[in-house]
Amino acid sequence: MSHKYSNGGIANGGGDYRNNDDEEMGGVVLGLDGGTTSTICVCMQFHPQLVDPLPILGRAVAGCSNHNSVGETAARDTLVQVMTEALSKSGSKKSAVRAVCLGVSGVNHPNDQERILNWLRNIFPSHVKLYVQNDAVAALASGTMGKLHGCVLIAGTGSISYGFTEDGREARAAGGGPVLGDWGSGYGIAAKALTAVIRAHDGRDSQTMLTDSILQHLGLPSPDELIGWTYADPSWARIAALVPVVVSSAEAGDEIAQQILNDAVQELALTVTAVVKRLGMAGEDGNLHFPIVMVGGVLEANKSWDIGKEVITCILKTYPGATPVRPKVEPAVGAALLAWHFLRKEIYGKCYR
Amino acid sequence: MSHKYSNGGIANGGGDYRNNDDEEMGGVVLGLDGGTTSTICVCMQFHPQLVDPLPILGRAVAGCSNHNSVGETAARDTLVQVMTEALSKSGSKKSAVRAVCLGVSGVNHPNDQERILNWLRNIFPSHVKLYVQNDAVAALASGTMGKLHGCVLIAGTGSISYGFTEDGREARAAGGGPVLGDWGSGYGIAAKALTAVIRAHDGRDSQTMLTDSILQHLGLPSPDELIGWTYADPSWARIAALVPVVVSSAEAGDEIAQQILNDAVQELALTVTAVVKRLGMAGEDGNLHFPIVMVGGVLEANKSWDIGKEVITCILKTYPGATPVRPKVEPAVGAALLAWHFLRKEIYGKCYR
Repeated sequence: MSHKYSNGGIANGGGDYRNNDDEEMGGVVLGLDGGTTSTICVCMQFHPQLVDPLPILGRAVAGCSNHNSVGETAARDTLVQVMTEALSKSGSKKSAVRAVCLGVSGVNHPNDQERILNWLRNIFPSHVKLYVQNDAVAALASGTMGKLHGCVLIAGTGSISYGFTEDGREARAAGGGPVLGDWGSGYGIAAKALTAVIRAHDGRDSQTMLTDSILQHLGLPSPDELIGWTYADPSWARIAALVPVVVSSAEAGDEIAQQILNDAVQELALTVTAVVKRLGMAGEDGNLHFPIVMVGGVLEANKSWDIGKEVITCILKTYPGATPVRPKVEPAVGAALLAWHFLRKEIYGKCYR
Repeated sequence: MSHKYSNGGIANGGGDYRNNDDEEMGGVVLGLDGGTTSTICVCMQFHPQLVDPLPILGRAVAGCSNHNSVGETAARDTLVQVMTEALSKSGSKKSAVRAVCLGVSGVNHPNDQERILNWLRNIFPSHVKLYVQNDAVAALASGTMGKLHGCVLIAGTGSISYGFTEDGREARAAGGGPVLGDWGSGYGIAAKALTAVIRAHDGRDSQTMLTDSILQHLGLPSPDELIGWTYADPSWARIAALVPVVVSSAEAGDEIAQQILNDAVQELALTVTAVVKRLGMAGEDGNLHFPIVMVGGVLEANKSWDIGKEVITCILKTYPGATPVRPKVEPAVGAALLAWHFLRKEIYGKCYR
């Protein structure tokens, strides 16, 4: 989905700041977005102030770095590869790196965070500041230009909501993966659609346009083939890739597809409102303003059936001060902005806002 | 679950019939039940008539033989191993085998059937009759003493219903595995319970006794650990093993656990009624009698909250002629009985009933 983001302009070379890491300013920061499907790294100059366009020097893309999905060794190798390539494209040396922030999918526990920090400590010298966050935190920062306040909702292959208050409290909801019922995720929507096809086929539920549209999309002759198809590859992203087919069927008037999307909207809205409620982010009367950063393929404008728009409508009923934000930069830039903020705070003792 | 079945008495040796495979009667048949968790093989004498107790000579148990779960090589090796051991325990030689029936989980398609038949053709000489069926068919035969008439409902780790009419038509429902929403299965029930714990923890749903009971059962300190626990091992049986914890919570009055079980009952009843309806098994007025063979851990008597009993109550509302059967022999014996019937039909030109 990176194609729709501005990368802030890819500048050529690190300018005056490169290889100048003895001074307070200068050098570069790396931001990484490790999603379920791909890992993206951007290299940004460490300017003293945020400028527009952002001084992005280089960008690289690699495969999945979720250690839960691909295992620890493959995840680590992917991170090293994508950082090396981003630095190379920037014309920057590893010695210019002053801070790295990884927003990694699958960081659900302090142990995960500690393990990934250990990988990075073996790659960079000790003066380099290292930060590991759930990828949702980087996504939030991509909509708030690095400020950790408000709520983010990610709905791509998986789904998760994360919230931060100005006084530093945080909460999350969902993000548990397929077994733990993230039914608003791309995987959740598509799994329900596949289930609807099987149920129509074996007589447990009504017929649906999803049958023809999904079978045609997958090139399968009969619903009987779907069981083998789902077993053939355990990738959730492969299942989630069927979401546009579900949206098309809903737009064509299929009631079962519409119900699946309506349920997903309710699930996603609930994922956000649970976080907002726990943090008291909307104040006692529920009317305070706060940003909701919306990220991921499921929330992108889907012609007439716009899941993201429906989710916002649903949230506004409870929290009229919620302000939807569609990030103009990608989550990897959000991670770089976090690295910038964290490093600036280390130097000046407070976070730039 | 084999402990609760009679194996029909393990006879010592094959008696007069062993090594007598030049005659119409004599020799042995093998029945196999390849479930998601284990594979069981029994060796039975090929008597001309069914006798009581059944002339079971030997029984062996091995691991999973679902090629979707463990891969083709491991599945095939497991089948060979368990047949060899059952013959050895029977004091029978491979040359005494006259027919083999495999009821294998994961046989959802003629291609699956053909592949497994090819494995067997490489193991046995050409005069040995070979039959491969979905494991649900063997389970049905275990409740009808080998007669293919009626409906079977299996709810263990997975769930499926299979039905056969006396004139040879058949139909199935569910059995698609975790992605395709078998919500009445042990996996489905337990996944919903785990999801309920996560939802209570992150504020999306009400608190539930399931939190304490599941965390205590798994020895985990917090719901935050559940995400890592589900990712640590993709085995569905490991998830499904939590069903007794859900039943205990429901019995203790937890409304969320009760709702999960009630939903599972509705799902399982619908799985059966969809098959009965498609086959017209209950006749035009819906009152004809037919057996429903109930198999699997989920359907076993669960103290005060008896899922199997509730499913039957639900089915009887639509089909009052449905007659629940709890098999007295295990599905592997059902497979042996099928082999017996099929072989007898080959010899006498009709199925013994």
